[in-house]
Amino acid sequence: MEEINEFIKNSNEVGKKIFAFIEELFPICRSITGNGVRETMGMIKNHIPLELHEVKSGTKVFDWTIPKEWNIKDAYIKNSKGERVVDFKENNLHVMNYSVPVHKSMTLEELKPYLHTIKDHKDRIPYLTSYYSENWGFCMSENKFEELIEDKYEVVIDSSLEDGSLTYGEYYIKGELEDEILFSTYTCHPSMCNDNLSGVALITFIAEALSKIKTRYSYRFLFAPETIGSITWLSRNEDKLKNIKMGLVATCVGDGGMKNYKRTKFHDAQIDRIVEKVLMHCNDKYFIADFFPWGSDERQFASPGINLPVGSLMRSCYGFNGYHTSADNLSYMSIEGLSDSYKTYLEVIYTIENNKTYLNLNPKCEPQLGKRGVYRMIGGGSDYPFDEFAMFWVLNMSDGKHSLLDIAYKSNMDFKRIKYAADTLYKVGLLKMV
Amino acid sequence: MEEINEFIKNSNEVGKKIFAFIEELFPICRSITGNGVRETMGMIKNHIPLELHEVKSGTKVFDWTIPKEWNIKDAYIKNSKGERVVDFKENNLHVMNYSVPVHKSMTLEELKPYLHTIKDHKDRIPYLTSYYSENWGFCMSENKFEELIEDKYEVVIDSSLEDGSLTYGEYYIKGELEDEILFSTYTCHPSMCNDNLSGVALITFIAEALSKIKTRYSYRFLFAPETIGSITWLSRNEDKLKNIKMGLVATCVGDGGMKNYKRTKFHDAQIDRIVEKVLMHCNDKYFIADFFPWGSDERQFASPGINLPVGSLMRSCYGFNGYHTSADNLSYMSIEGLSDSYKTYLEVIYTIENNKTYLNLNPKCEPQLGKRGVYRMIGGGSDYPFDEFAMFWVLNMSDGKHSLLDIAYKSNMDFKRIKYAADTLYKVGLLKMV
Amino acid sequence: MEEINEFIKNSNEVGKKIFAFIEELFPICRSITGNGVRETMGMIKNHIPLELHEVKSGTKVFDWTIPKEWNIKDAYIKNSKGERVVDFKENNLHVMNYSVPVHKSMTLEELKPYLHTIKDHKDRIPYLTSYYSENWGFCMSENKFEELIEDKYEVVIDSSLEDGSLTYGEYYIKGELEDEILFSTYTCHPSMCNDNLSGVALITFIAEALSKIKTRYSYRFLFAPETIGSITWLSRNEDKLKNIKMGLVATCVGDGGMKNYKRTKFHDAQIDRIVEKVLMHCNDKYFIADFFPWGSDERQFASPGINLPVGSLMRSCYGFNGYHTSADNLSYMSIEGLSDSYKTYLEVIYTIENNKTYLNLNPKCEPQLGKRGVYRMIGGGSDYPFDEFAMFWVLNMSDGKHSLLDIAYKSNMDFKRIKYAADTLYKVGLLKMV
Repeated sequence: MEEINEFIKNSNEVGKKIFAFIEELFPICRSITGNGVRETMGMIKNHIPLELHEVKSGTKVFDWTIPKEWNIKDAYIKNSKGERVVDFKENNLHVMNYSVPVHKSMTLEELKPYLHTIKDHKDRIPYLTSYYSENWGFCMSENKFEELIEDKYEVVIDSSLEDGSLTYGEYYIKGELEDEILFSTYTCHPSMCNDNLSGVALITFIAEALSKIKTRYSYRFLFAPETIGSITWLSRNEDKLKNIKMGLVATCVGDGGMKNYKRTKFHDAQIDRIVEKVLMHCNDKYFIADFFPWGSDERQFASPGINLPVGSLMRSCYGFNGYHTSADNLSYMSIEGLSDSYKTYLEVIYTIENNKTYLNLNPKCEPQLGKRGVYRMIGGGSDYPFDEFAMFWVLNMSDGKHSLLDIAYKSNMDFKRIKYAADTLYKVGLLKMV
Repeated sequence: MEEINEFIKNSNEVGKKIFAFIEELFPICRSITGNGVRETMGMIKNHIPLELHEVKSGTKVFDWTIPKEWNIKDAYIKNSKGERVVDFKENNLHVMNYSVPVHKSMTLEELKPYLHTIKDHKDRIPYLTSYYSENWGFCMSENKFEELIEDKYEVVIDSSLEDGSLTYGEYYIKGELEDEILFSTYTCHPSMCNDNLSGVALITFIAEALSKIKTRYSYRFLFAPETIGSITWLSRNEDKLKNIKMGLVATCVGDGGMKNYKRTKFHDAQIDRIVEKVLMHCNDKYFIADFFPWGSDERQFASPGINLPVGSLMRSCYGFNGYHTSADNLSYMSIEGLSDSYKTYLEVIYTIENNKTYLNLNPKCEPQLGKRGVYRMIGGGSDYPFDEFAMFWVLNMSDGKHSLLDIAYKSNMDFKRIKYAADTLYKVGLLKMV
Repeated sequence: MEEINEFIKNSNEVGKKIFAFIEELFPICRSITGNGVRETMGMIKNHIPLELHEVKSGTKVFDWTIPKEWNIKDAYIKNSKGERVVDFKENNLHVMNYSVPVHKSMTLEELKPYLHTIKDHKDRIPYLTSYYSENWGFCMSENKFEELIEDKYEVVIDSSLEDGSLTYGEYYIKGELEDEILFSTYTCHPSMCNDNLSGVALITFIAEALSKIKTRYSYRFLFAPETIGSITWLSRNEDKLKNIKMGLVATCVGDGGMKNYKRTKFHDAQIDRIVEKVLMHCNDKYFIADFFPWGSDERQFASPGINLPVGSLMRSCYGFNGYHTSADNLSYMSIEGLSDSYKTYLEVIYTIENNKTYLNLNPKCEPQLGKRGVYRMIGGGSDYPFDEFAMFWVLNMSDGKHSLLDIAYKSNMDFKRIKYAADTLYKVGLLKMV
């Protein structure tokens, strides 16, 4: 698995590519269904062999029903001079997502209940949705709203809401083991970056990296609309859940904020311990939040009838300044943040792949390391050609029950240091894998 | 149980009534036996249908024996001018409780070994007792003591110590369940307020409130002399102990100090978790003390052969400035403190009554709350007509094993918030009680 | 076991004797084998009836082999004027321990690779060893090294490295129980005091003290070279390990630094709890370190195939300023530190010996202490002739499962206070030992 370290070394370069991919995806108007999602999936397929699924409107998925498919060509509010004062083509957030078709002439007074703004941030367009009740509306900046004058407006939403299907994509990499690791991200948000083109683009590049190497675990990458998408996948794949040993939801991974890990509901599941160990030794500030049952798709994975240990490794968590508004645009992204997210996800995968458990084959007292050539020759000197401190921890704790991660925790050493010490001891025949 | 909230709303008014009741009880000279106790019981019976018990002197109660009954009519030290320099009628603390009859003429020198004062607080009369060894004495302020001159004093204690009985009172409210909650308070202290007329009066009004409503649990209220009284009750009711699920000893609940909870010996029993949750959300300072095996009757309930989870919810704990002296008088009481103690005890009872455990009937992923009318209709907006955060916690954790209290702890939300969310979900058929 | 308290009272006097013994042992050149060790053992035998063992060179002990025996008569570097510029007779640290015989004429340039100094502390001679690879060298101060001029030097090490044996000593005291307590210290270091003549001398006097009294536990005192010695003992005594309930490695116990306890690998073994309780109440600063698998012989006892709960109670831990150099000499010792180490080890032994578990024979409510004469007679007074607080703790927790140490922890009282309360209760028949 040392190839992962090669990817990590290259993370600065990959960060730039991830940003470029976000730029490419940004203009598309996505929703929980529709052609915007399909177009997005097509662009992901340029990187990885994504398998696409279409689930028909009306299909029951647990307690939910796949809604009609929504598509939109154009939308605007035109004043009596024929000027578009609100224009979907300028920013797709201008239309409340899933708005039904509208073509009306309205006074400002009639129109106002359908106009949404943010009073506290007058320059931002809010992002609103109405997936499950038929409604329509326009979102606009408070500044623009205040400029509106009494007039007769032509209000047009050229959308369709019809039987169709919900689209999701899946990419599965078979490893040595049936045990699998799930990475899930959501593809339903229109032109916003941290939430969540950053997650989509990051997972695309993580998957692309893993596609190039042999792995011990199997990996599953899921690209689906939030909530309804993960529910759909879970309802159609209950037989696969037993293989999923852990997972992460990737969202909000692209800004310059500090890393932020939201634990699984189990609080100290294997994935929690792995991510937290990586963060502890990242030489950077970070934040660890206990599980809470709102947020993103970890909610579905954590529901009491599913109970999968899935955390979420983010940067600035949803709710950041600009969240769900037009301020979450390309300028909010940080190439350094994207690079670091890529690196951190790979460090997590490195730890997952290498977290083995060994048995000390010489358990009675310490073995004589010197005669095996892995110990300094002059006692009392300050020359330490081998990492005897890490080796002593591995020897002391390798009773077949403690994993390398356990040893890394107990010793306060980073995982790789322990892993390399175990490699040394394994090479000279002092350890057996269990 | 929402009637309890009505009582809580009314706590300021009730606080005044509790204080008035303390004023009424204050002048009576009580002890561990005798007519002062019977008179006190009679006044409690004006509020609740107390069942009285008399246990004869000489009766064995576990390791102890009910002592002779003590009564007192008068006591004084008269100087040669015929002036009462110490007078029981002025303050019943002047006589060491359980003093045997005395009628003597004594010099000051002879008298001194029988006079007790507090050197550090010259204006306070100490409260002393000698229940189990025949003795007599007078307690007085150091100031008065210093005024005593050489003289021939007439020393009179007109008391009786004869076979009789120990009196205790009990009030049992039958609820839906056999499981019962114990509230215990002690009735043996003469004219002192925080310790413990406050406890006696508070429990009287709590019992009175519960007598007016239907409860899920059964409730037992015990009014008995400290130590010997709880031992007596325990020795005569061992068959009932299995029903007692938790309890509180009410003492020192009437002053203006901050609330103070002394945990059960089990440290995290149900009652501990309930009281602490109530305190956490009380918007006021409080103090939590680990169990220690001295103090009040929780000692007996916590003895290794009894092992009941009984805590003690107080304000300024025994040992406060003025404790066991004449300074613990009516002026030490705070109507605000009494009201708040009443409110807090009721909040505890509310939590006990409503701490149910549910099963999420739609455990696989989240249910669609919107179609049941208990979710906001526009996604991304800031309008939260329903408490979705609390509902998500309840749904996520209601696996039939976690109670609402467990969910309140995990979510850091107050119990009522979780309870109301559960009510909403129950109404739309998403929860089943277990 | 109250005789131990007599020894403790006398610790200041014993501290002086321990220092005198260190002075006596200081000049001898010890190593992991050889006559210096035998001479040391002989001097210990003046105090306690040590049983000596010789294990032949070439004997396999677990993964290791007993090396050839090393002895040395003289060693020096002489300049062309015939002056000894480095002289073993002046300080035996001048020769790298286990140096093979040498007799050569060398230029300064040829000699330099064999000369070892400490750049940061120019006046100190380092202590180096080469037990397991044949080598030779001289250690000297950087100051002396800098004075060396171009010259033809006569280099002599008059040592022998031949088949012989490794020497260790053992002293076993049979107590009432088969269960035994291990004290281990190492005898291989030449003229250095804190590391580890302090440990050797302390254990000698501790053993001498215990030899004079009857003990409940059996005690085993082990004097052996570090690493190879404890490995040798363990490999030859595997059948005895089941009896060893706990132990301490005594090293670095003689300076003026604060007490420092290195926990066993089990973190909260009985010995950890005992030592930490003693330290908590020592009215002095101390330090508690979690286990780490390097250091001294606790490493061997903690190896996964041995797994004995052995901690190490030190003062300034190995690595102190001057460690493994000529600065660790007699002037580094503190008689006060030695006395305090002696006292502390005895407090630990006192706790081990007296940590019994009792059953409260009157478990239902409190027993009436007054009628047994071990309670104050006037209630409410401030006269406490008996330690009722400690007695209440013992009564409350003596359910046959909690030891006196458990009670001392829970009550935050020192062990002796709880022990004396238990003695009082035992005398009046309220406790039974389990």
